Parts: sequence; structure tokens; C-alpha cells
Amino acid sequence: MDRRSPAVNIDTLIHARWIIPVEPAGMIYEDYSIAITDGDILDLLPTARSREKYSALDEYNLDCHAIIPGLINSHTHAAMSLFRGLADDLPLMDWLNYHIWPAEQRWVDAEFVREGTQLAIAEMIRSGTTCFNDMYFFPDRVAEVSAECGMRAVIGLIVFDFPTVWAKDADDYIRKGVEVHDKFRYSPLVTAAFAPHAPYTVSDNPLQRISVIAEEINVPIHIHVNETKDEVLQSLEQHGKRPLQRLHDLGLVNERLLAVHMTQLQDDEIALIAKYGVNVVHCPESNLKLASGFCPVHSLQEAGVNTTLGTDGAASNNDLDMMCEMRTAALLGKCVAGNSSALAAHKVLEMATLNGAKALGIAEKTGSLKPGKAADIVAIDLSVPETTPVFHPISQIIYSAGRNQVTDVWVAGKQLLKERQLLTINQEAILSLANDWQEKIKQFD
Amino acid sequence: MDRRSPAVNIDTLIHARWIIPVEPAGMIYEDYSIAITDGDILDLLPTARSREKYSALDEYNLDCHAIIPGLINSHTHAAMSLFRGLADDLPLMDWLNYHIWPAEQRWVDAEFVREGTQLAIAEMIRSGTTCFNDMYFFPDRVAEVSAECGMRAVIGLIVFDFPTVWAKDADDYIRKGVEVHDKFRYSPLVTAAFAPHAPYTVSDNPLQRISVIAEEINVPIHIHVNETKDEVLQSLEQHGKRPLQRLHDLGLVNERLLAVHMTQLQDDEIALIAKYGVNVVHCPESNLKLASGFCPVHSLQEAGVNTTLGTDGAASNNDLDMMCEMRTAALLGKCVAGNSSALAAHKVLEMATLNGAKALGIAEKTGSLKPGKAADIVAIDLSVPETTPVFHPISQIIYSAGRNQVTDVWVAGKQLLKERQLLTINQEAILSLANDWQEKIKQFD
Repeated sequence: MDRRSPAVNIDTLIHARWIIPVEPAGMIYEDYSIAITDGDILDLLPTARSREKYSALDEYNLDCHAIIPGLINSHTHAAMSLFRGLADDLPLMDWLNYHIWPAEQRWVDAEFVREGTQLAIAEMIRSGTTCFNDMYFFPDRVAEVSAECGMRAVIGLIVFDFPTVWAKDADDYIRKGVEVHDKFRYSPLVTAAFAPHAPYTVSDNPLQRISVIAEEINVPIHIHVNETKDEVLQSLEQHGKRPLQRLHDLGLVNERLLAVHMTQLQDDEIALIAKYGVNVVHCPESNLKLASGFCPVHSLQEAGVNTTLGTDGAASNNDLDMMCEMRTAALLGKCVAGNSSALAAHKVLEMATLNGAKALGIAEKTGSLKPGKAADIVAIDLSVPETTPVFHPISQIIYSAGRNQVTDVWVAGKQLLKERQLLTINQEAILSLANDWQEKIKQFD
Repeated sequence: MDRRSPAVNIDTLIHARWIIPVEPAGMIYEDYSIAITDGDILDLLPTARSREKYSALDEYNLDCHAIIPGLINSHTHAAMSLFRGLADDLPLMDWLNYHIWPAEQRWVDAEFVREGTQLAIAEMIRSGTTCFNDMYFFPDRVAEVSAECGMRAVIGLIVFDFPTVWAKDADDYIRKGVEVHDKFRYSPLVTAAFAPHAPYTVSDNPLQRISVIAEEINVPIHIHVNETKDEVLQSLEQHGKRPLQRLHDLGLVNERLLAVHMTQLQDDEIALIAKYGVNVVHCPESNLKLASGFCPVHSLQEAGVNTTLGTDGAASNNDLDMMCEMRTAALLGKCVAGNSSALAAHKVLEMATLNGAKALGIAEKTGSLKPGKAADIVAIDLSVPETTPVFHPISQIIYSAGRNQVTDVWVAGKQLLKERQLLTINQEAILSLANDWQEKIKQFD
């Protein structure tokens, strides 16, 4: 007589050499499996037991792989991938004034955003990113193309004081932003954040309005702050206070805020953001490339601040590779802290997953491998020479693995990358479109 | 009547979308070819013309690729790849005293060095490195395995004051070093450098002897210097002078010297090394990971110092990826200089190729794509989403490309990597040996 209960029918069962759930922190399960059904994680359990307990439509044996939660890119301008490498090694203001802004004025329209975002999503999926927090024009197009690709996204309801191709003044940006937010209110993969560009491009009145509306519609506020020394000096001159203090006085310094860059921080500012629960988005490669300065990430973490990780746009990085961004953050963070045990590997993985989800208000859905959350999952093959031997899989992922070792990716249980092949994007078609843009843009730069 | 001259018979013709010869600096040839015969570069010329002028036994069409000179890793401890990720995120002295040194004492022997070096060479070839400057025990084994793999190497004639598995005292190290040097005197791919470990592990007398013998046998001197603040403080205490000044007083500060790390530099020291033609080997990822400090690379370059690039060993990096090291150097160098146009892409490529060759005394043989030099050549596929579009191929190589885009590698005209497959190393066999080491080492850490 067979006394075992009958197997439960589910959609997917993934068996892996290692599973790193991020919650509990630093945990590594060996020879473990994830059971997925209806897009959600149902169970994590030893592989041997999983084969008895579940009967799955799809089963994957990833016996050289580590499984991690999908990476969350907490700050990017996805469509700018079409400007990747257009203008490097220049002083910041030359780069902006003579290359990036003229190129944006000439080329950015709904089609550019659509195709640039698709190129960016292709790169992000291929490097293990399953969610990105965007800031760019035409957020409705970003939302559409993300949904089509099966990618999770937080679209940025961008705001400037001045006119661009997307809106004519702050009121118009805010109005259009709220419309876009409402349009995607019930999208399963897309949420929104207000994205006033920076304290120096948005004035007091619209910043205050954004603060009020963001609370009403319950979305985060995503803004560049304290990025460069010049920004701070200019703010002191114009407003008599540093940018962060100005945001505080306008009511924006709270748990809703994602403050991006933060390379210019005094002790009192660290205390302020710790007290009010501000989220800091660290973009180390962009900060280095533009010579902006060093964000004191270890000090922020010691103060209890939620720190997350972003690549920034491909025009200032020049990639959207969160695997490499984790590595840069881990290495740089130690030297900036003068402490080789700062920003330990598992802490950096947490920055790139769970901390991002918390900042973006989607931690109930994603950011760790926990039953009840969506199945946003990345598999990394550690059997190549570059990650041999494996003493500690988290170390290998942060310090040695390359994005090309990401083999398979799922978002909400749907597979987007299978053995390095994109399943929801026609790679040849998007490369061909990108090459067309290249020819056009090249003629005018 | 055909008035063309008959085609010249040669070994190999490589046609590429872009060729970046490094000499002249910053030059990019489009739709160009390299003619190779007897292991050397014979000619660089437009592809259309090359098909008329030469008839080759082997012909390669690399029409999505950029061709660069093979990368030169100017500082590594290759065999330590077997300790990759053994002990991360620890304070420096805990890492050394409780993990790395005990592991070395227990495990390092001729077999360990042989197999660890082979694993390292596999990783290096797969990431476009064609020459490495090594510092480790059993340099004879390093030389043997490099020659077997067809890899160019500068082996380190290591010296310490104290006994190790390789030698019993400074005299013994020096004697054995000279023997190894003589044994490989006429090897086509292997040269040697004296490698006294550091000013704090080798005393005055052997350092002076090394200086004399290095001049006699005409080899470089490869040493860690001014790596950490503690090293400098300890030297001031014990010798009443900083490490670099001590080396100067002992006669080692000259064009023969490769000073590795140099994160602790005062203006007078920069002037000193510029005046005497010292070569600086920058290892940014190791310096960051061990929180050693920031090497002022831009200031060194402005002072006219020859700056080169190294990965350090895989125990403190944790990879031997010169593609990523170039990127880190370019990004970090800008922020340390406070100048986003410092360490421009083409300058960093020069650091990783020609400057390394100059420092190692092998610039007549390698370091740039120039007729008469050996055909040490790397092809990088730029047609993937991660490097699309391509406005400037050098920018794409430094800021966007990953090592996995290295498709083909030649050393002295012999192909070592073909469409990502190693031709002179049995990858499965070396991975299996590395996994055996892992199981042994794991039990005792």
C-alpha cells in the first residue's frame, strides 16, 4: 500500500545546485528546488522531496547553477541605450551641452523611446535584471514595451520646469504623468513613480505638488539628488541651502523618496535620511565615469538607511549590467569605507534585489524567493573556468561571474530567457532597428 | 594580359570590421586585414587590397569584430586561481593570517602551481590576455605550462627573506631564480623578471644583490610597493624612510622597476619615479577589494610615468579579466582625478597592451599591431545587444564589452581560442582537477 499523498499538480519545478533566497539574509540552500504555480512561488524545498511532492508541467534541471531573485535596477534611463558610447571621456558639461542634450532634442520621440527601451530590456534580461525603475520621456511607451516583453517595470512620471517633446511645463508633465499612472493602474507588471528630474531642474511649487499627489496615489518619488559638488554649490547660492535640505523643507524627505546618486553627503545629511527612512539609490559606475564623487554606502548602511543599486542610463555607464554594478559596488564600497569587510557579497546582493523592491514599494511581490511572491527568478551557471572553484556561491556571483553566465530568467513565472536565448524579444529585429538609429544619429553628432 | 603581381603566399589573413593597432595611438582602421606569416605580423592593409596581395593558408572573416593587440596582464599570481573566493569580505590581516597563508603553506607544491596556472591561463585566454607577468612559487612550472599552452609569459623569480616550499632563504631564492632564468633563456614565449615580494618581506642585502644581477642578466624587477598605509608606516618606523625611498637608496629605482599597486603616493614620489623612468602597475580591483587605497593614475600619466595594468591574483580580485580591469581603471581613474576626461578609453587600452610590453622589456615583440612584431591578436565581437550601437569601437571595448565577447585569440600567430573554444587546453580536464582541489581545500579551511 502506497502511503504517500498524491503529487500536487503545479506549473513549474526548478531544481538547482544552489538557491540563494536573499531572505533569510546570507542563506544558501544546496540541492534545492522551487515550485511555481500561477506565476507565484509556491514552495522551496529539497530537490529529493520536491519530486515526490509535486508534479509539474515544466521541469528544469540546473545542476551547475545558482538561483537568485531577479535583479532590480533601481535607476536607469532605458531608452538612452541608443546613445551608448556616443560621447565618452568628456568634461560633464561638454557631454551634456554639446552631445547628449542636442541628441535628445533632435532624436527623442515616441518611436525612439519604444525601440531604445526594447534594446535596453533585451540587455537587462540577458544580464539577470527582472525589474527596472525608469526615468525618461514617454513613460506610456516604456510601460507598453515592458508589458509586451513580460518585464517588470516601474515607469517614471517625469517632470521638468521647461518644455521638452513630452510636455510643455511642470503642470503639463504632472497632468500627463497622472494620466499615464491611471492608464496602467491595473497592469500586472507595471507600476509608476513620480520622477521629478532633479532639485535644480524642478522648482519648489511643482515639487510640493508632486509630494502631495504621490501620497494620494501612493507612488514613490524618484529624483537625482546631491549628485555633484557643483549642484550643491549652485543650490547654496540660489536657495541658501543644500539640495537635500530643500527637499526636506518641501516635504519630500520621507520613506517614499528614492534619492539617486548622493555622492555629496555630510554626516548631518546621513542622519536626516536615516531618521526619515529615505531610500538611497547608489549608481557607482555612473558616479565614477562622470567623476561625480563617492557615495558613502557603508556609512549609510551603518546608519540603517535602505541602500539600493542602479546602473543609470547606458550613456553614462555604458551598460545596464547589474551583475557588474554589484561587483563595482562591492569593490568600491570597501575602499571608500577603508574597510575590506564593508559591503560584503550577500549585502550587495540584497541591495540589488530586496532593498530595491522595498524602495519601489513592491517588496510584497518581488525581491526575494519567498512563497507567495511572484516567481522573478535568475539562474547563473557557475561551472565555467571563470567561477571555478566554488567555495562560496554568493562570492562567486558578486566577485567573479559575468552577465554571460546568466542562462535562464523568469518574471512572474514566465520564462523570458532560456539557455541565453530571449523568448519574448526578437533580438535580430531590435538590433537591426538600433543599427538604423546609429546611422541616423552618427550623421549629426 | 594580367598585369597584377602574383599573390604572396603567407600563413594567415584575418579580415576584420575594425582594427585597433594601439600604435599610432587612438587609430582605428575600418574594413582592414592583418597578414601573418612565421608567427609575425607582416602587413596591415585594407581588406580589398589584402585579397589581391596575399594568398593565405588560413583566412578568417571577422566582420562584426574589432581586433586589438593581445592584452598584457602586468601583475598576477596565476596559480592562486585555485584559492578564488576562498575567503572574501575579511579584514586584510585576517584574510592573510588565517586563510591565504595557511592555505598556501598546506597546499602549494609544484603540482598545485602547475594546475592552478593552467586554470588561470584558460581564464586569461578566454578573456583576451596573451601575456602575463607572474609572481609565484615554482616559476619553472609556470614557464613549462605556459609554453605548453602557447601562452606568452614573464615568469617571476620570487624572493623572500624567509623559507617557503620553494626556497630556504634569500640566497637560495636568488640562486634558484637565476637557474630558472637560464633554463628558459632561449624559450620563444617565456622571459623572466626578478620578483622580490615586497620591501617589507625582503631585506636590504638581497634587494641590492637582485638589483646587480637583474642588470647583468637584463631582466625587469617586479615588486609590490606602497600598497597600503600600514606598509608605509611600518617602513618609516623600521627604516626611517618610506618604502619607495628605501628602494631608491638601494639602487632599484630605475627603468627596470615594475612598482605594483602604488596607492600611497606623495607628490615628491611621483616626481621621483617620473625622473627615473619607473613603471607603475595599477591593479584597481585588488586595491579596491582589499581597501588599500587609490592609485593616482592620471597624475602619474600627466607626469609622464609609464602606467600599466594588472589583475593581481584571483584570491584578491576575484578574476583575471583584463577587459573588466580596463573598465574599472577607466571609470575609477576619472573619479580619483576629479576629471571625467582623464584615462580616456584609448589610453586605457594602451596601458593594457603597449605600456605593459614596454615595462616588461618585450615591446619589440608584442604590445601593438605593427609589422615585425609577433602576431599576438584578439578578436572581440561587437554585434551583441550589450555593445549596440557602435559609435566608437574603442569606447565599446572599454566601457561596454564583456570578456565573453572575445571570440578568437592568437599568440605568435598560433590560434589559442577559436569561436570561444580553447585549442591548447583541455577545459574539461582542468575543471575536473580544479574541482578536486576545491574538495581538498574546503575540508581544511
